Amino acid sequence: MTPVDGRTRLPHGVGAREFAEALAAFRAVLSDSRVLTSEAVALTGYDDAQAVLGPGHFAPSAALLPGTVEEVRQLLRLAGRHRIPLAPALPGRNTGLGGAAPRLPGAVVLDLSGLNRIVAVDATFGHAVVEPGVTFVDLAAHLAAHRLPYRLDPVDLGWGSVLGHALHAGGLAPYEDEPPVWCGLEVVLPDGELVRTGTGAVPGSRTGHLWPYGHGPSFDTMFAPLNLGVVTKLGVRLRPAPADRRPYVVTVPRADDLGPLVDALRALRADGTLGEPPVVRSPLLDVAAAGRRREDFPGAPGPVPEDAVAAVVAELGLGHWTAYGTLAGHPGVVDAQWAVLREALASIPGTRCTLGEPGEDRTAAGLWGDAADGWPRHGGHLAVTPLLPATGADALAQYRRTRRLLHAAGRDYLGSFVVGRRVLHHHVPVVFDVHDPDDRAAALAVARRLVARAAADGLGVRQAHPALTDDVAAAYGACDHALRRLGERVKDALDPAGVLAPGSHGLWPRRYRGLGL
Amino acid sequence: MTPVDGRTRLPHGVGAREFAEALAAFRAVLSDSRVLTSEAVALTGYDDAQAVLGPGHFAPSAALLPGTVEEVRQLLRLAGRHRIPLAPALPGRNTGLGGAAPRLPGAVVLDLSGLNRIVAVDATFGHAVVEPGVTFVDLAAHLAAHRLPYRLDPVDLGWGSVLGHALHAGGLAPYEDEPPVWCGLEVVLPDGELVRTGTGAVPGSRTGHLWPYGHGPSFDTMFAPLNLGVVTKLGVRLRPAPADRRPYVVTVPRADDLGPLVDALRALRADGTLGEPPVVRSPLLDVAAAGRRREDFPGAPGPVPEDAVAAVVAELGLGHWTAYGTLAGHPGVVDAQWAVLREALASIPGTRCTLGEPGEDRTAAGLWGDAADGWPRHGGHLAVTPLLPATGADALAQYRRTRRLLHAAGRDYLGSFVVGRRVLHHHVPVVFDVHDPDDRAAALAVARRLVARAAADGLGVRQAHPALTDDVAAAYGACDHALRRLGERVKDALDPAGVLAPGSHGLWPRRYRGLGL
Repeated sequence: MTPVDGRTRLPHGVGAREFAEALAAFRAVLSDSRVLTSEAVALTGYDDAQAVLGPGHFAPSAALLPGTVEEVRQLLRLAGRHRIPLAPALPGRNTGLGGAAPRLPGAVVLDLSGLNRIVAVDATFGHAVVEPGVTFVDLAAHLAAHRLPYRLDPVDLGWGSVLGHALHAGGLAPYEDEPPVWCGLEVVLPDGELVRTGTGAVPGSRTGHLWPYGHGPSFDTMFAPLNLGVVTKLGVRLRPAPADRRPYVVTVPRADDLGPLVDALRALRADGTLGEPPVVRSPLLDVAAAGRRREDFPGAPGPVPEDAVAAVVAELGLGHWTAYGTLAGHPGVVDAQWAVLREALASIPGTRCTLGEPGEDRTAAGLWGDAADGWPRHGGHLAVTPLLPATGADALAQYRRTRRLLHAAGRDYLGSFVVGRRVLHHHVPVVFDVHDPDDRAAALAVARRLVARAAADGLGVRQAHPALTDDVAAAYGACDHALRRLGERVKDALDPAGVLAPGSHGLWPRRYRGLGL
Repeated sequence: MTPVDGRTRLPHGVGAREFAEALAAFRAVLSDSRVLTSEAVALTGYDDAQAVLGPGHFAPSAALLPGTVEEVRQLLRLAGRHRIPLAPALPGRNTGLGGAAPRLPGAVVLDLSGLNRIVAVDATFGHAVVEPGVTFVDLAAHLAAHRLPYRLDPVDLGWGSVLGHALHAGGLAPYEDEPPVWCGLEVVLPDGELVRTGTGAVPGSRTGHLWPYGHGPSFDTMFAPLNLGVVTKLGVRLRPAPADRRPYVVTVPRADDLGPLVDALRALRADGTLGEPPVVRSPLLDVAAAGRRREDFPGAPGPVPEDAVAAVVAELGLGHWTAYGTLAGHPGVVDAQWAVLREALASIPGTRCTLGEPGEDRTAAGLWGDAADGWPRHGGHLAVTPLLPATGADALAQYRRTRRLLHAAGRDYLGSFVVGRRVLHHHVPVVFDVHDPDDRAAALAVARRLVARAAADGLGVRQAHPALTDDVAAAYGACDHALRRLGERVKDALDPAGVLAPGSHGLWPRRYRGLGL
């Protein structure tokens, strides 16, 4: 048994002796090799890679690597008995959101990577049933090996959990504003109880992954953040593989072109011409993706001057804004969609439209704000992602407010917009030098101001780094924080011991509530 | 004040004196005219019209008619204080499912018809925000008066609550297997607390009805059955009004043609040719819809003989199975869809396809099993609605099993199938003579056998009459009834006084649990 000494990290509210006893109990279930402690090198993989509050702030005290649902149940029962907080982690979590780090410093990570069975793929109706550890690469390989005529979206998240991405139900999936793409859960409650939902609760169910609802209340969506239960199996709808699939790039020359560009793209999303959501990226994000760094430009410290931005954009052949997307379908339909897209954008002077070749991968353009990490020296970023109505006017106003706030703090704007049918996902990376404590603190302060400003504008933020999650949750404060109290009542009913993912998404169990953690 | 005497009906577990005190408190909020008691003629409207357990079995003790959300909150608070069970009722509830009758005999109906404001219609994104009393007729009139380019589906439910239908999220809506069509709730919890969900919880929210999810767990779907909260406002997505809309009718000549018919229609649903789900009706349901009655045929008591069915089907020019549906879109697209549909069905010998005129209303064909009420003398029906995978083989097997079970009990099969993309909704009306106690009891026994048989075949039932709802709920029994226990834990956390819709959908609060009510 690993010695528990003074240097060992402990979960908040747990003594060294209790912790040692709990580890012994966990080892009795998993064997030594699947209980990692802070002495093990492997634990660093569960830390926050972009440690805005300093290295190790959100580090776990240990990690558990179950391989079966039954082991997950046993671990949760033991956690309840020993009052040990467990924080579920999936493969491939976004580093800008804290990676696999638990919200509660020192919580024990419940790493679900080992639950990696593809339970079933239904070729008739087009869905897969997966465990949490199944990655996009795993499932794509399975579909290819069995010659099943389905493909996965997004293709870019090879390293990510299919279940995690589906539960998140946002981002780049083509069905992005038609969630849920998932149907039928198996979930382990915080006390170890196993539940199947929807018609899947009928023994021998034949429709559990075809139709999401049963007879009474449906609780499925409340399990998505994995803080009220651990989802151990999920039905995920697949897309028929399109005959043709081609990337396109659209550039517009001026900052104010964002408005008409978004309006045009939104209309094409709404009428079905664009089945997948394009991403509209700001100039410096593309400049960073091209390998340039802040230090290559004048004006430091502070944002890159306008004329320098214009010069590098011209040099690299970019637009001020650049939209990246994909057309998919029958080849004739893709041709027609392309013609409609060009026609719709023709009224914006100076627009350039380029259609790529079939099979070209849009990942070449980089995704989200990860490209932003290359911008500063030793770069990391906090992701702030407000949702706004999908109109050009809203996009322009949000862009201007965000840029002004960042510039006032001496930082560059590296944002992008994902264009949904009804909402835009504004992805704002606040980049900083991970080795510079002052810069880290300043970045966190700016991110907090962005969250507060979004709330003041009536815009919610969906995702958050552990350092921001309480700020983000507090913004959902209508009716004197009634939604938070609702969550807390359900949390206390299902997790009276307060052991599952304390503080995740701002939801604290009674034992940790109000402690200012 | 209405006298409370020995004849007055009381809610289970509530004494006459407590009830009188509660009524006085309710009257202080609503005034006398909006508190109806069992002496009032109007109360009969809240009884079960097709009283399978005898007239008045599920009758309420009183009804409350609030007009504002604030009144709903006050009534729920008073109900908690006086421990009076309240059962929400919406306009136009399906009679085969018990109408507005509460599950708990003698519960007080909370009639939400008076909350009938159309709060907003968003012309840009195509959604309405409605209170529970807004009917399809109300909303259609509003859209027409404001010349908004949206239409409602289904058009047939003029008398029904838009909110109620959307929450139910099944049936005939074109988006039928892409729920939720709703986005953003305002809900009053059983203790009177008001909650807004999703990004609607951000004060001044601009996206509350555009995107369903906020930062943490989403609880929206659990409120759909109105037994964990009273939904007082709901965002409902509207459809752009199609340029053309035409009904079609397809008949196939043999019972076994159900298989290939369902397979063909399902494939056209899956590839988008048929945007709206067709309904495939059995012969006697159409015979009943044509005005014929059981007494017009030989073989009574017992099912109508095969040859008599064949004769009347031939006489009326029906098929053995008849599919009713609607094509909608640009006129050229509708023509193309029609050609594809005919082509797809050409391989079934003897198929006849008829396209109706634009503007013709498919309601002429009757909906669901309501036509079945005309079949026996003084007819009523219990609706049993199992869900099954959308394949021809499953449809045929379910049809044969169901028909055999009904015939063995001396009853006719009057079923129909709604063809979704992944599931079929099998709607089986068990008809009976509402004036005949023996026939009522026999019908209930048959309905129970149908529910049990569906469960044995791994099929869940979604909706149920109050007399059946506990049977239906019990079938969702996997993992030793873990889903029921999950519901009970959430119920007890949100409704500790056990006052909101006790027993609805088989979910009983602690105070009534296990009493065999």
